[in-house]
Amino acid sequence: MTAYRQLEQRFRRIGAIEEAISMLHWDAATMMPAGGAAARAEQLATLRVITHQHLTAQQIGDLLTEAEEEDDELDRWQRANLREMRRRRAHAAALPDTLVEAESRACSECEAVWRTARAQNDFAAVLPPLERVLRLEREVAATKGEHLGTSPYEALLDQYEPGGSVATIDRLFGELAAFLPDLIEAVLSRQAALPPTPTPPGPFPVELQRRVGMRLMERIGFDFRHGRLDVSAHPFCGGTPDDVRITTRYDESDFARALMGVLHETGHALYQRGLPAVWRLQPVGRARGMAVHESQSLLLEMQVCRSRAFLTFAAPILRETFAGNGPGWDAEALHRRQIRAQRGLIRVDADEVTYPAHVILRYHLERAMLAGELVPADLPGAWAEGLQQLLGIAPANDREGCLQDIHWYDGVWGYFPTYTLGALIAAQLFETAREVIPNVLGAIAQGEFAALLAWLREQIHLKGSLLSTSEMVENATGRPLGIASFERHLHDRYLG
Amino acid sequence: MTAYRQLEQRFRRIGAIEEAISMLHWDAATMMPAGGAAARAEQLATLRVITHQHLTAQQIGDLLTEAEEEDDELDRWQRANLREMRRRRAHAAALPDTLVEAESRACSECEAVWRTARAQNDFAAVLPPLERVLRLEREVAATKGEHLGTSPYEALLDQYEPGGSVATIDRLFGELAAFLPDLIEAVLSRQAALPPTPTPPGPFPVELQRRVGMRLMERIGFDFRHGRLDVSAHPFCGGTPDDVRITTRYDESDFARALMGVLHETGHALYQRGLPAVWRLQPVGRARGMAVHESQSLLLEMQVCRSRAFLTFAAPILRETFAGNGPGWDAEALHRRQIRAQRGLIRVDADEVTYPAHVILRYHLERAMLAGELVPADLPGAWAEGLQQLLGIAPANDREGCLQDIHWYDGVWGYFPTYTLGALIAAQLFETAREVIPNVLGAIAQGEFAALLAWLREQIHLKGSLLSTSEMVENATGRPLGIASFERHLHDRYLG
Repeated sequence: MTAYRQLEQRFRRIGAIEEAISMLHWDAATMMPAGGAAARAEQLATLRVITHQHLTAQQIGDLLTEAEEEDDELDRWQRANLREMRRRRAHAAALPDTLVEAESRACSECEAVWRTARAQNDFAAVLPPLERVLRLEREVAATKGEHLGTSPYEALLDQYEPGGSVATIDRLFGELAAFLPDLIEAVLSRQAALPPTPTPPGPFPVELQRRVGMRLMERIGFDFRHGRLDVSAHPFCGGTPDDVRITTRYDESDFARALMGVLHETGHALYQRGLPAVWRLQPVGRARGMAVHESQSLLLEMQVCRSRAFLTFAAPILRETFAGNGPGWDAEALHRRQIRAQRGLIRVDADEVTYPAHVILRYHLERAMLAGELVPADLPGAWAEGLQQLLGIAPANDREGCLQDIHWYDGVWGYFPTYTLGALIAAQLFETAREVIPNVLGAIAQGEFAALLAWLREQIHLKGSLLSTSEMVENATGRPLGIASFERHLHDRYLG
Repeated sequence: MTAYRQLEQRFRRIGAIEEAISMLHWDAATMMPAGGAAARAEQLATLRVITHQHLTAQQIGDLLTEAEEEDDELDRWQRANLREMRRRRAHAAALPDTLVEAESRACSECEAVWRTARAQNDFAAVLPPLERVLRLEREVAATKGEHLGTSPYEALLDQYEPGGSVATIDRLFGELAAFLPDLIEAVLSRQAALPPTPTPPGPFPVELQRRVGMRLMERIGFDFRHGRLDVSAHPFCGGTPDDVRITTRYDESDFARALMGVLHETGHALYQRGLPAVWRLQPVGRARGMAVHESQSLLLEMQVCRSRAFLTFAAPILRETFAGNGPGWDAEALHRRQIRAQRGLIRVDADEVTYPAHVILRYHLERAMLAGELVPADLPGAWAEGLQQLLGIAPANDREGCLQDIHWYDGVWGYFPTYTLGALIAAQLFETAREVIPNVLGAIAQGEFAALLAWLREQIHLKGSLLSTSEMVENATGRPLGIASFERHLHDRYLG
């Protein structure tokens, strides 16, 4: 057997363990009784250690060296697979076991303290464990950077957005920061001048919300033979490509919150389900990264499902489901309620106009902390100052400020940029889709999604990790990733 | 670190992988959409291979040898743990990888063919794969027997009932076969002479069945902070000691089927939950075997919950739940319906009087097949003949005969005796409980289970795998396992 084939066998096993981890994670968030948490943590830690051991085994290193010799016998998918194997190996091998363990322990501890600290608005309580986490993350970033030949920040970013570069992000975020403040101002003035939008009166029973969510998911292309919809405190898309598990949480006073959340996760789910089946469990068969992943959820939620076209299709279904009547159920009213902009303090509640400001703030702050230019003790002040500059508002307390997101406290550094990169990719892809798919908005207004899904399958989903994010975007849209489509989209939707 | 401590660390990891396997198995039976089956099979196979690799690693062998030198530094739990480690190692090391893989593949294939063959009553279709499975099981039995120093049949039995002996089973089953036919005859005559039992009229909505099941589970001692009740095609108790997952299936025309099933699984669940927490993930912390496991489910279902005392407690709750009225809801009527005996063809539907005949039949047939004295082609004839002798009835077809149980087709040989050993242990334990716990039946009639559960915890659950099954039974009841208590129980309940 060639070295390459042996690598495929070994990575197939690693892939299967990681699928098991994903399912157990889903169960912990949806089904597991509270008393199962400690045992589950032990199961997951064990499987993660085993994955790390498999990835760092001496034989993988030897086989990778051997496989490079066979390069001319490999096709382009196999070559890309080898590249992805090397990338995964490099990330794993960069960290000694001791650092992996220390990081894992520091994050678990800090995350637990953060839950209480956030609830009690007590940043001081979480400061010492956060400092420990940051110290370890700086060590991880430095070590991985050396192994990968990138800057420390890019080494962390690479975990979520392979090949992501600070230069690109700085440029894109700079361009966004240049036009967004004025745009936000204009959008809010215009919105204020409009008559109030009528509201469908609740309550909206959970079971009806669930049913209409499933009906729309299915119509868009979610295959319930290969997936489920359940409830969890924090909505996510988990499971595996052949068994996609998405979750939501319901609010009986506002059906649209859960519904838009479900449609967002459905975008993730379609991507996961659409990954190339012949490369299942291989590194090249995986999703390209979190920017592309987020582009698929935002394309569906923001570009498609908050559009007038989609709500034209959905309005009668919603009205019928909830036995609603009155002007709040008209497509136009539903659409207008789904595109309300607002200067708010909380990222996860933000609309698409103000969302980038939240991300840019966090990107600057995490870079400064990783560079040692900002110490965690000064984070609350830096947060308030940054938000004031970017959005013109300031949090009244840390709960609504630097305590709101789990990421840093749980050791997730270098992740935030992917949200806004995803929004830019989504806008650029959907603009192209409107050019290349005849009358795609007309089809959406009829509840027909097949042509759009087929195009996304071909351009994105079926590509797995064959190409880099930038290659994939450029192939699909004919130009490098930029902010122009996003800017046009905001202008058209909010000022058009 | 001592060799023993190193072994504990290694087995802790193996234990955690096996817990992960158990959770994924539960998910497959309860939550997984059909399209996830192939991916799940791959995940489970991978985790099983990894477990096998860990168990058969050279270092475990070396450490076991070293740990024997340290024997005088170990306490009795540690010594028992070492003994169980050796047993697990012996089972794993007995089989070369090739045989593990061939067996796993043959069983998967045969089980799939069996599903269709049973539905279509087509024994001929499943005969070739069954012959392959038997050939491999004979090889496994021979190899394991050599390693364990037991007969081939006992080597298979040892997988489910550690230390189980053919001599003991032959003696106990012989004694049962000697008195059961006359007893069945007497029970059925007496039953026929009674006036008909009034029946609570249905239908019984699933949601109400579920709620009353949970209410009774909780009352008996099931802790929903550490467990769940769900639905599956074949009821089982799965999960882990800290996260016990039991399942049932509902029949809207007869609430008692699901309810008695739930209470049966609750018996398994209480055992699993009650295993010694300080030995979690260690071999000595596991359930002793399937005979003891079944004794806990049968003690709760058959001895406790089908008793007049329990139904005196449950009758008003059931009547209230289903808003029932009429004589079918009286405790006496409910009790009489739960102790109806009948000569039937299907094991899983059998009552406690006729159940042993089904087990004895399968035990004789599987021993004969493993010994090469009966070939699968002759199984249908041997089945009919055996059932005629033991129970005086014969199946009209193979669907109701040798195709009804999954066990042999799925490679589960040497398991059947544990059902009846469990019934004997249950009867002997409960007879002792009635002697040593003041007024236990009176307490049950009041819905008080704490004293009984505490006694079971102390005598059985908290013992884990410290003792052998026979030691544990003898310690708890003051005498070796026999048939006397079971015989007295049947006499008292059905002829008293």
